[in-house]
This record gives sequence, C-alpha cells and structure tokens, in this order.
Amino acid sequence: MKTHLAIDFGGTRSRAALFDDELRLLRRAETSSKVEEGMDAGLKRLIDLGKSVIEPGSKPASIGIAAPGPLDAETGVIFRALTLPAWPDVPLAKTISGAFDNLPTFLQNDADLGALAEYHLGAGQGADPLIYLTISTGLGGGAIINGQLFTGWRSHAIEPGHMRFSLPDGSHRRWEQLVSGTALGDWARHRLRATDSPSSLRDLPHVDGSAVGAAALAGDALALDIVAQAGRWLGLGLLNLLHLFNPAAIVIGGSASKLGDLLLDPARAIIRQHILHDDFYDDGLIRPAAFAEDICLVGAALHAKLQLDGGASRSRL
Amino acid sequence: MKTHLAIDFGGTRSRAALFDDELRLLRRAETSSKVEEGMDAGLKRLIDLGKSVIEPGSKPASIGIAAPGPLDAETGVIFRALTLPAWPDVPLAKTISGAFDNLPTFLQNDADLGALAEYHLGAGQGADPLIYLTISTGLGGGAIINGQLFTGWRSHAIEPGHMRFSLPDGSHRRWEQLVSGTALGDWARHRLRATDSPSSLRDLPHVDGSAVGAAALAGDALALDIVAQAGRWLGLGLLNLLHLFNPAAIVIGGSASKLGDLLLDPARAIIRQHILHDDFYDDGLIRPAAFAEDICLVGAALHAKLQLDGGASRSRL
Repeated sequence: MKTHLAIDFGGTRSRAALFDDELRLLRRAETSSKVEEGMDAGLKRLIDLGKSVIEPGSKPASIGIAAPGPLDAETGVIFRALTLPAWPDVPLAKTISGAFDNLPTFLQNDADLGALAEYHLGAGQGADPLIYLTISTGLGGGAIINGQLFTGWRSHAIEPGHMRFSLPDGSHRRWEQLVSGTALGDWARHRLRATDSPSSLRDLPHVDGSAVGAAALAGDALALDIVAQAGRWLGLGLLNLLHLFNPAAIVIGGSASKLGDLLLDPARAIIRQHILHDDFYDDGLIRPAAFAEDICLVGAALHAKLQLDGGASRSRL
Repeated sequence: MKTHLAIDFGGTRSRAALFDDELRLLRRAETSSKVEEGMDAGLKRLIDLGKSVIEPGSKPASIGIAAPGPLDAETGVIFRALTLPAWPDVPLAKTISGAFDNLPTFLQNDADLGALAEYHLGAGQGADPLIYLTISTGLGGGAIINGQLFTGWRSHAIEPGHMRFSLPDGSHRRWEQLVSGTALGDWARHRLRATDSPSSLRDLPHVDGSAVGAAALAGDALALDIVAQAGRWLGLGLLNLLHLFNPAAIVIGGSASKLGDLLLDPARAIIRQHILHDDFYDDGLIRPAAFAEDICLVGAALHAKLQLDGGASRSRL
C-alpha cells in the first residue's frame, strides 16, 4: 500500500501521522517538541516521532513536513523562526529525509498547508482564490490561487498577522496583536486591573486567550465584550483581504474558530458597513475550517502526494 | 500589417491608439470624455475617437479597452463606476465591437492593464509576483501572479485603495483617502486654514493635490511636510502588500509617482522599521513606473494581443 508520512513540527507540540494515498489516516502520534533542549535533541525527537507511526518493514512514498515560517520551501530550511529562538537555521527537510532512507521530503509553511487541506478536502473546496487564516496564539495565513499554493517571490507570501493598524493613541499594531488569543488575554488582564466590572475571569490565577474564549462561550459579559472587540478588528483585516484578493472564500481555523459567531458576527457587521460593493462579499464567504488540530498533518501529506504525483514545480530533496 | 486598437476610457479624458503587433505606437488621439452628456453620446464619442486612429480601409486584429472598475471582464460590462455616476451598467465591449465590424474586443480594468504593461514591457519585467499601484486622484492597483493577470473570484481583485487604517481619533479611512492627490489637497487646505505656516500655496485660488505636489517639488516646507505625511501612510499600506503578496516588485505609477523620493523615502523608512525580515524587502523592490499617461493604452493593446494569441482563458466578444 502506498503511504505518506506527515510531520507537523510545532513550537510546543509536534505530531506525526501516516496516511494512505487517499489521505485516510492510518496511524498518529504526538509529543512535546522540547525545543529548549536544542536543535540536535529536537531533531532526534522529531525523527523518532515519525518512525513511531511507520509499520516495521514498510516504506512511505514521501514525507511532508509542516513547520512554522519563515522557511524556504525550495531548500527545505527553516530560518529565524520566532518559535525556535535558540536554534540556528535548520536544514529540516534534508535532515528528516536522511533519517528515512532519503525519501522524497517536502517542507512547507504550516498555514500554507492548512490552505491546501481546506481547498482540496475541507471547507474551501472549489473556492478560488481561497484564503485560509489560522488564529490561535498568533495569526498565520495561506492562499490558493489558480488551484496552486500561492507562496510569492521567496515563499513568504500571506503573513496577514503583519498587516498594520493604527490605534487611537497614534501608535500602530500588527493585526495578530489585535485578534489573536494573545490579544484577548492582554486586553482581559488590562480590563480586570483597570475596572471593577464583575467577571468569572477574576477567579482564575492566570487569564490567557483560552480562558477569555471559554468565559465568553459561558456568557461572561466582560469576556464577550473583549471577543467582540477582537471581532471588529478581525472585520477590518478581513476587509483588506476581501478588497485585495477578491477571494471566493476565507476559511478561518485555529483555536479562535471555536468562538464561532461570537467572533465572526462583529466582523461581518464591519464588513457589510464598509465593503466596496456586494460582489466582494456574502455571508457564506467567511467560513469556519473543516479540519481541527490535524489540519497541518493532512496538508503536509497532501502536499507531499501532490508534489510526488507530478505537480513538482518545486525542487525535492 | 497586423495592428491592435487600444481605447482608454477615463472619467475625464479618453484616449485611443493604434499599435503594431510588436506594441509600437502608430497613431494616437485623445478627447474629453464628457460623460455628463449621458451614455449614448459618450459611447458615440468613444467610437469616433477609436475610428480616428485607424487608417481608412485597414482593419485591426483586435480591440483592447481600458476602463475604471468595477467591471466584468468576462461579459465586457462596466457597472456602478464611481466616475460615471449617471450611467447605467454599460455593455462597453459589445457596443465597441459592434461599431467595428464585430472585431474581437477585450475589456479590462485600467489598473490591471497597467500591471500587465509594466510586467511585460516596463519596470517590472521578470518580477513575479508584481504589484502595480496607480496613485492620482484615487488609488488603484493590479497584480501579476505566475505570469498572469490576477483578477480574483469575480474579477475585482486588487483594490488596495480600500485597505482600512484607523486614525488617532478612532475613526478609520481608506488607504486612498490617506495617500492620493485628493488627500494631499484636503490636508493642505486644512493646514492653511488651521495654522499660520508660511507657504507658497497661500497665493493660489484653489489648492489641490497637483498644486501641493508642485509646491513640494519647488521646496515649499508646508507642502513637503504634507507629502511626507502621505509617504508614511503609503509605507504602512506597502507593508501590508509586502507581507501579504511577498512581491518581487511594487511598481508605482500615476501622477503621484512624479514626487519620487519625496514620497517614497518616508515610505521606505516605515517599511525598514516594521518589515518582518529582510527577505521581504530591499530598496530596489519599490520602483517608479516606466510608462506615464499612455500606460493603459499599451496595456489594453497588449492584453488584446495576448488574448488573441491564444492565452484566451477568458471569453471574447
């Protein structure tokens, strides 16, 4: 049976899975990445994780790796990743390939692979252009244009979290500083300190984005207000993406997508207010992702399969 | 000799030109559009203008039309154009084609055709992705991705003037309201009313964007300050485009490009301060356009030639 090995290398958790050629999940494993132990130990953990999902004696047709950017998909190197502060540039594809009998190995940005998975198998099927956003601790993105992953000049395209917005005090912030889980946590802690508003969040030892999300889903007024504020900033950024890419769909994944309409309704209100005309937008255009935490594994296996099957516009290792 | 007729339909002026198959200009004419006289009279003026550049007895191979959007390139219809307030939806390609023996006729957004001209024949040759911006009274844009005009889902892609920015008072504005000639004029009139700063602009009966540009180029301190302010907003919007598209070049045309480094240096300073990392940007990436006011004529003829030569992924009339 033809199989594909997928590895999702994250700053905190890493996952590996074996898929068949129809992208059905066969085996799966995950572990703590422990990047603080350094590059050599970290790469060994990743290789062991990948080997743990392969049947003894069998050999996958390809390996797909998802990793946080910035990275160079052509050379398979991750460089200056914010989640790997103490690591040098990492020749990830070459190292992994070398540990697996030099199997053809394809590295790609995790959010780009999310876009690929949602376009071929998820909530964005048939939608071209497709924009995929992943909103969790940070905010990443990917796009499909003319059926292909859009990666830009040096494979860095679609860093929507770095769009800039000015604040009332004249300073400006990146979009991810206004929309991500980090922003929800920061605002909530500020509001709890600066006001006397009652909130279930006051009972918690530490208030982060997940806590704010959970409180909002439970009906906490202060948390709901903060989620709505993030939703309005989300709407302003989505307006930019709609006016620039005229996408057929924007698929929203990551842990923030659990907030659903609590986050999306304020965004939709901003969009309806300011969109240039109706042809840019209808309510079905902005959709929650079909895949959850395994989206990058599916995307990595799919990417490796597509590259192997001949799309191979990129070099392989 | 194989020739292509190009018509650039503008809200104020319209132009027509005949090109040979190597895109060399053979004949050219222009006239006031007089759109206030209504659609029927306006279309007749445009047809007469086109006929005035064709040698009697000869027949072009194709017609390319540039027009302000929004428009539908597939059906050749301009609709709800801001510059044509009193006109209904205009079946422009069909009407023009009908007046020229049903020649194959291709309508496209003027800024998209600017991108095409700069990519094939101008300052963006070999740069992929390429973003083209035209900054004059308003701000339009186009993009080339994988060698093709990028038009998005419903051919509305790349409306960068509609990116949103918040102001210190909490309100927000479109990018074109912060960067275009209209913005320069508005700010200058406000500053002249609200301050006693000396300025050569005080001697003028009406201060618009062109006047501010001319005064800045002549060294007027107040005008220079206003151009620098627009340049900083320009930089913030360019940051968004760099982080989203990772373009190999951003080519800037339109009358604002005459301001050169007076406008671009403050933009570059903002970009260097906030760019995610060096791989997204070097100083040569942002360039003035090679073509001036005839850019849309060149683009329209080139588009018609390319469609005729077989790229023809679009329907033709």
